[in-house]
Order: sequence, then structure tokens, then C-alpha cells
Amino acid sequence: MPEQPELTIQGWGPATRPRDATVTGGTEADDGTLQLTAFPDLAELLPRTARRHLARELDWTPRRTPPVPVADIRLAPSRLAEDYRLRLVELLGEEHVRTDRETRLRHAGGKSYLDLLRRREGDASDAPDAVVAPGSTEETAALLALCSGMGVVAVPFGGGTSVVGGLSGIDADDRPSVSVDLARMAGVRALDVASSLVTVGPGMRAPALEEHLERSGLTLGHLPQSWEYATLGGYAATRSAGQASTGVGRFDDLVAGLTLATPSGVLQVGSPPASAAGPDLLGLVLGSEGALGVITELTLRVRPRPRARAYEGWSFRSWAAGLAGLQRLARHDLLPDVVRLSDPDETRANLLMAAGRGAAALRGVLRVRRRGEGCLLVVGWEGLPPLLRARRRAAVSVLRESGAVRVGRRVGESWRRHRFAAPYTRDSLLDAGLLVETLETAATWTALPTVYDAVRGALGESLGRRGKPALVMSHVSHGYPTGASLYVTVLADRDDALPIQQWLSAKRAATDALMAAGGTLTHHHAVGADHRPWLEREIGPLGVEVLRAVKQRLDPAGVCNPGVLLPE
Amino acid sequence: MPEQPELTIQGWGPATRPRDATVTGGTEADDGTLQLTAFPDLAELLPRTARRHLARELDWTPRRTPPVPVADIRLAPSRLAEDYRLRLVELLGEEHVRTDRETRLRHAGGKSYLDLLRRREGDASDAPDAVVAPGSTEETAALLALCSGMGVVAVPFGGGTSVVGGLSGIDADDRPSVSVDLARMAGVRALDVASSLVTVGPGMRAPALEEHLERSGLTLGHLPQSWEYATLGGYAATRSAGQASTGVGRFDDLVAGLTLATPSGVLQVGSPPASAAGPDLLGLVLGSEGALGVITELTLRVRPRPRARAYEGWSFRSWAAGLAGLQRLARHDLLPDVVRLSDPDETRANLLMAAGRGAAALRGVLRVRRRGEGCLLVVGWEGLPPLLRARRRAAVSVLRESGAVRVGRRVGESWRRHRFAAPYTRDSLLDAGLLVETLETAATWTALPTVYDAVRGALGESLGRRGKPALVMSHVSHGYPTGASLYVTVLADRDDALPIQQWLSAKRAATDALMAAGGTLTHHHAVGADHRPWLEREIGPLGVEVLRAVKQRLDPAGVCNPGVLLPE
Repeated sequence: MPEQPELTIQGWGPATRPRDATVTGGTEADDGTLQLTAFPDLAELLPRTARRHLARELDWTPRRTPPVPVADIRLAPSRLAEDYRLRLVELLGEEHVRTDRETRLRHAGGKSYLDLLRRREGDASDAPDAVVAPGSTEETAALLALCSGMGVVAVPFGGGTSVVGGLSGIDADDRPSVSVDLARMAGVRALDVASSLVTVGPGMRAPALEEHLERSGLTLGHLPQSWEYATLGGYAATRSAGQASTGVGRFDDLVAGLTLATPSGVLQVGSPPASAAGPDLLGLVLGSEGALGVITELTLRVRPRPRARAYEGWSFRSWAAGLAGLQRLARHDLLPDVVRLSDPDETRANLLMAAGRGAAALRGVLRVRRRGEGCLLVVGWEGLPPLLRARRRAAVSVLRESGAVRVGRRVGESWRRHRFAAPYTRDSLLDAGLLVETLETAATWTALPTVYDAVRGALGESLGRRGKPALVMSHVSHGYPTGASLYVTVLADRDDALPIQQWLSAKRAATDALMAAGGTLTHHHAVGADHRPWLEREIGPLGVEVLRAVKQRLDPAGVCNPGVLLPE
Repeated sequence: MPEQPELTIQGWGPATRPRDATVTGGTEADDGTLQLTAFPDLAELLPRTARRHLARELDWTPRRTPPVPVADIRLAPSRLAEDYRLRLVELLGEEHVRTDRETRLRHAGGKSYLDLLRRREGDASDAPDAVVAPGSTEETAALLALCSGMGVVAVPFGGGTSVVGGLSGIDADDRPSVSVDLARMAGVRALDVASSLVTVGPGMRAPALEEHLERSGLTLGHLPQSWEYATLGGYAATRSAGQASTGVGRFDDLVAGLTLATPSGVLQVGSPPASAAGPDLLGLVLGSEGALGVITELTLRVRPRPRARAYEGWSFRSWAAGLAGLQRLARHDLLPDVVRLSDPDETRANLLMAAGRGAAALRGVLRVRRRGEGCLLVVGWEGLPPLLRARRRAAVSVLRESGAVRVGRRVGESWRRHRFAAPYTRDSLLDAGLLVETLETAATWTALPTVYDAVRGALGESLGRRGKPALVMSHVSHGYPTGASLYVTVLADRDDALPIQQWLSAKRAATDALMAAGGTLTHHHAVGADHRPWLEREIGPLGVEVLRAVKQRLDPAGVCNPGVLLPE
């Protein structure tokens, strides 16, 4: 198992290096092996042309707004009573119950813009009172029963990469809380090659699993942007989607079985390959976000490593033409494994910000083809060569009929090589006085254009109230026969006086607008604390009541991550 | 909408013709249109060679054991109190509350072997006390609230084709019961062609929907053997799989949204194309079998009608070789859309029983290729011609490497044309003194051979206790990357004295054995009343408790189909 790097306390990237030096980013080698290698330094991440473009677009004055030193982060003393701590120690051993400052800080919150703002300002009020690390399903179940008896909140911790407040630890009764770190349950437990199934611990990360599977010629193929740090248990708890989910399926589709430790006992769900024995309890544990218990084991569907891959760029004249083209591919099940259609604003920004990464070449191609920047589409196919060729040929013919022009493999390969890079740029943008956040949704093909307009309008209006315009860039990142996801990146000059309120207002406006237009509350980031106020609107009051009934049965004392999912 | 034929009270086939005359069966025309057309008469269904083979194999003496005349079926008077009936009439109107003998008999039980035995013996003790027909979601919710208040059991009725006791109406408190007939909610409510989504009422049947969709060049493609009679709501409530589910997906995969009317209100679930907003409540309604409420609307994923199809037969030397071949296809996602691998016993019986349907030609081919009867594999591909060719070529190469030989298109086409025929043969076999029943399961590729041996062993031993051997025939009917389903048909000389006990013992032995070997309780027939005793073994005591908590919240008086799903 490769060493698992920890994230910095105040940003993205590995904790073992100073965060303002050259950072490490995930890249993909020529042979397709995913690996952690050196990433270009910050000057290349945000070249001068891009800085000028942003300054102009956002009426933004680049300025130094660095985070407070880590040593200055304010951390309240642990509220865990000593006799409670001793009972935890009795169960797990002294070395697996930690209350030191460093460990508590590392388990404070997740990695949303709001999380980073707080940590950069020196606020760690969401830090747990202790960090505990159970080593097995039985120990986790005993731990949760103990917490339930003591009235101590338990928040599962995988990679700490939540961007929706999944680790906020909020509790209406303000009880002490422990972070349940799953790092001790991070190994492969069984591999059934004939059935394409691997069983793993929840704290395992995808890079380590891929390394293990490679020896058998297999892959999981789940590649979200958080791939280097997030855990497999976290993907299940949040219903993650990855960059190749259009092809290999959402993480939901890769899970064949789960074990959930709860205060009321252990639940084993999933019956591969398929069952009609009553409602699907697996689907009830997926997306449960720690609110029903802690996932302690996963059985995942793996597949042979692809023998061939083809990534390439295409260009549409307009967003509407791009969506129409994808929709035609989708209804005939011709979508490639990776599909990523950028709107005009994102296309322009990508070309500017990606200087030195083939962007000049791309601009050249577009000029020759007498295109404006238009909308860039990155597509990728993987698999057996003859099938890949047939799928690609059929898709290419639809793309051509839809008015797209091919801009070559270099764009596709460049995207693939830097597929995990985006979060690394965020820290430097924050340092320079910007608001940087993303949000995402999904809608049917019919509703998608309306949802797109609604989100852009709401964000533009809310963030524009200070008299400075926002830059709202969107792309479709996952396609389905019935619709697609929409991923939105927002940049604006940060309100240094009230930065949290600035984003909360914008997020509220955007969420209200996208839901009114028919979008889902979240396509792949979960509910967390941030989306809780809208859950009832998404699933209805009776839907909320059903979830409450399940929670009440499994977690009667309400100690399992009470700050997420269900509205207060 | 074509006229929807009703099933006979004592068997399969349309009620409008005498059941011992030429019956109607579903077939497929040359152009691939699915239609209801004349079916060969009984002499052809069970030719002399097959009768002789069965008599020899089963030590069975063909005899006439006809059902009692319908007029002689015993039916207790309705137990529904008049004031309760009047309240139902007030809600639904006089014409939608029926207590006449004919209507009650038509809604008694389903179509399992045990159901037919009871009905043939003149027993209709499972008939509802009344049949009610709500016309909308709101009316259904009001009806269920009324039933909840009156303490009247409500059992949803779609096509009446359950083979697991889904309509048994069993109630521990022996309260009066109504059958909630969904025939009034049987239309298309919306069609969103761009998003490949159609919204329908639960009482609609697939033939009518296919006819509607054909006008837009679309198809649903869900083709279970009960296709002519079963309803779309029923498919969702039981987590159905169809003959092409390997390609188009299980019915679960085709459902994008559901509306469930419950005594506590209306639940709307599903958020196409995908969502990460908490646990999947859609999966909780799928497979709920009427125990949580009544499905009153479905939004289904449709697709373009296939432009090409190729069906053909292959032969493996052995069952083990056949399973290994399918597993190799499966792990590379190369399974055809239809996959049906028969074991040696089923292959032999099919060849004998299918005399006059190309069987002679097939036997000729096998002789030329110096094969014994071996194991017959029927495969079918549908879709866009170039993709179909590429998929077929890749699969054929794996089949050849796995030792299979091609036996031609005639076998495949013959299977396709008679794909809905099997249930029609059952009545004539019952008339002649046979036990005829099926059961099904699924397991991972690793566990499947053990499950197969276990089921055969258990059925053979249990049914052999009378000194007469059983014929146990199996096939794989649906393939997945991680495993496959197993469909088992059992024939034996019927114990005329204790026919129900004969089958109950065999079923119990088979279910215990298949579960011990790692098979699921049911792959596509639901739990019903028949599988209830094993649900806890399938999902664990805590899993049962979770379902109980959900039921308690939605149906506190326990009036929603209390005889199914949850153990007493």
C-alpha cells in the first residue's frame, strides 16, 4: 500500500510540504497508470494572462490575503469528560483515542470554501473533542453503542474532503463529539476475480486499491477530483460520481455490498449480482452520510483494465448546440466514458488559465477552423480496442451531424493528465483575495437549459450586489440517457469583511433557483450540513419522515453525525 | 390502447376463450413487433415424444385431473360490513366498489402452482371481500387512509400474475380485505422524448405502452414471460427482470421516478437523471410489494427501437463450460442483450418438447458437429447495426475460445418467437397429473455452480421421497458482471392426495439449500407470502427492523398488503 498523504489543515494538497511551495498533484503517466507526481508550480497554475483576465472580468485587485499561521488557529479545550475518554480507551486502546491539538485540527471540518475560510481565519470551532480509530466492524458497532449511551456525537472521517459540510459536527444539543477516523480499516479484505468483486475497508483510498488491483489486471475506475485523498467509504456515504462515471457508472453502481455499524447493531446489505427480495437496503445505506451509522466494509465491482483509450477534444459553436449533441448521443447509449462539455465562459477561462498546457495549440486549431472559442467538449473512450473503435465511430458521426468539429487528441490528453489539478489552484486564488467555490446539480435533458440559466442568473445577481461582477463557469460532467449533471465554478472578488455571508447568500440564491427550475439539490456531493435546509424540498415531508423513522430505529439517541442530511 | 385480455380464473391465458381450446400466446412477428397471436394447440405444446420422455423420466402415468368447474369454486360471503362498503362507495362511486362473485374470484390470489392447485380444487379462500378501483393518486391515498381507519386490508392488484403469493391477502388479524384494482390508472400521462422518459399509470400493461411508444420510434424493452398480462406497477412493486434485462437492465434500472400513495400521504421518489441528495428512496419503493402503499404513477426510461437484431443458438459441451464462457463474456461487459444457457436436462427436454419448432433441425446440426445434446445457449443482440456487429464479433470470439459451437439463427429465432409461451403449457401439464413449478435465484459467478448443485440436490431428494424421480431443469436467464440468475423448472408426478404439501416441502428444501450455498432468496419474483419465512435470513434481523420502521411510519395500522414481504 502506498503511503497515504494527509491534506493540509488550511487547504488542499499534502500536509508534508509547505503549502506555498511546489505541491504534489495527481497525474496520469503515458501508460495510463494513475500516480502522484510533481505538479507545476503556482506561477504556471495561474499565468499572467489569466490573472489579467480575471482582474478585468471581476473588477478584482489581486492582493495578499494569506491564512493565519496554523499555530494561531483557535481551538477550544476538549469537552470530552475524562471518564468518557477512559471508557473509549478501554474499548479501543490508548493509542486510538487522541485529543491532541494537531490531531483534532486535522479532523476539523472538510474542504469546502466555507471550511477553508474558517480555517484560514483561525477558526476551528468545528473540531471534534477527540479522534477515535476503531479497527473492525465489531469495534465500530461497540463504539457507536458506547457513544449512544454516553450521548457523544460520532462523525465518521475518511479523507476529510467533504465540500458540503459533511464533517461539520453540528449538534442541536451541543453534545461533545468524536471524529471516527477509519484509517485503521484501509486494506483489501477479499478479491473474487471470477466474480469481479473486491472487498475493502472503508478507510482505503482509491490509489492504494488501484495499485492492489493492477496486479490482477483489474481496475475500479472511480476517478473523482478528490481521488488522491478521499476514501472508498466516503464515496459510498456521499454517493460520489467520478470523471469516468458516464462510462463505468456512479459509485452507487460500483457498490455490490456494504456493512454498516450502527448503535443498534450491524446491518449487512447488498446481494450481488442482483435480488428482488424486497426493497433495496443497499440504496438506503449509500448516501447515508454517517447519519445512520458508519460504513465498515464495502464490496465493489471491479473490471479488467482497459486495453485501449482515446481522449480527444471537440468544439461546438454554442452551449445549446453542445447540449443537443450530447442529448443525441445519450438517447442512443452512445455517450463516451468521459464527457465534459464546457460553456463559453469556462472554455474561455480554461484556454487562458491553461497557458502552457497545449492551450496555444488549441487556439490555433480553432482559428484555422474559423471558430470562436465556442464550447469545448472533452471526450474519452476506454476498453477493448474493437468495441472502442465502433463506439467512437458511431459517436463521432453523431457529433459531426450535431455541428461539432474535432480539435484533436492533445486537448483530451492534456485534460486527462491534469484531471486532479483543479483543487490545487484554489489555495492560491484564495491567497489573492478571491471567492472560489463550486456547486453542482443534474436535470433531465429537457430541464437542463433552464437550470443552467437559473443558476447563472441567481449567482450573478447575488454576487453582483457589491457592484463587482462574478464569473460563473459551467460544464456538463456526467451524461445519462435521461439527462446530465451541471458543474458550476464561481469566481468573484471576495468581500473581505463578510466573506462567509457573501457566499451563503449566493449559494442560497443558486440552490433556490436550480431547484425551482427542476434540478436536483446535488448530483454527487451529498447533502451534508450545507444542503440540509433543502432536503425536504427535494424528497418531500413524507420522504424526510421515512428517513427519520430509519434513523430513529438505528440511532435512537441521535448521535450519528446529527449535523448532516436530515433537517433539524 | 389495445384491449387488455383478462386471465382465466384457474390457469394462464385469456379468460375470453375456453381454456381447453386453442389458446392465445404472445409471439413476435418477423418485423420484431411484439403481438398477441394464435398459439399452436395443445397437441403441439406437448408432443407424443415429450409425453413418453416425461412418463419414463418421472415414472408418471398421464391421467385426466381436470379442475372443478368454475361454478363449483367455493367462495365465502363478503365480510365487508355494509357501512364500510358505503364509505368506499362514497369515495369511489358505486361502479368502482364490487362485491360480486365473478369479480372477487378474478382477484383471488396469483398464478403460482399453489394458487392454481387451490383454484383447480375449488378453493378461493384467498379471494378479497371486495374489489375497489381508485382513479387517481389522490383517490388511492384517500382510499388507503379510509382502509387504515376502518381496519380493512388493501391489496394492490395489477395483472394478478404473482407467482410468490403476492396477492394472498393473508392477515394475522384476519381483517376484511379489498383488492385495489389499478385498471383505471392505465394510461400514458406524459412523454418527454428528449429526456427518454415516459410517465404512466400503474395499471398499464407493457403491450399497450409499447404500442404507444412505437409511434415515437421508442420502446421500453421490458419482456418478462408475463408480458401480456402483468402491469408496469407490478413490475416495480416486485423488482421484475425481463428476458432482455441483461441488455436493457432490470425493471429497477428502467424506473426514474415513482409515486406511492400510502395511508400517511403521498411519497414521490426518484430524481432523474441522478442525485446524491441522501439515501435512495426510489429503491425503497421498488420491491415494496404493496406493503408500504400503492404505486400510482411511474416514470420510466425508454429508448429508441433497435434498428437491428441478431438471435442465435450456440452449444457448449457441458454446464461448467457454459458458465465459464458466460463469466468470461460478463467480466468484459460483452454479454449479449439476451443470454439463456440451459443445462443438459433442460436442453434435452426443450429439444423433445419443441418438436416441430426447429428442434429436428437443431438435432441435425448437433449430430453433424459430433456433439451430444450438451448445453444450449440462446443469445440475442439488439441495437445500432455497427455496434451490434462489433459487440457480436467480440462475444463470438470469446464463445469460440470457450469451446462453444454455433448452432445457427433458427434456434435463436424460434426461441424469440415463442418467448411468452411457457406458462400456457402449464395448464395442460396440470390437467395430466403433473407437478409443474419454477423457482429462481441468483449468485456470484463463484457461488453459482454450488448453488446449482444444491438446488438440484434438494429438489431431487425432497420430491424423490415418494419413490418417483423429479425432473429438474435449469437455465441462466440474466447475466451480470458479478454473477447470474438461475431459473429452475421442476416436473414430477403429482401427489394427488397431498399436492400442496408435496410442493411446500420441496420448495422449503430448495430455498434452504440455495441460500446456504450463497444464492439470493429471489432474483426477480419478489418475496410475497411464499418467501416471507426467509427474508430475515436474506437481509438480517436489523434489515427486517428497518423495513418495519418504514412500514410503521407509512402504514401504522398495517393494512397495506400485510401478507407479504415482512415476516409475521
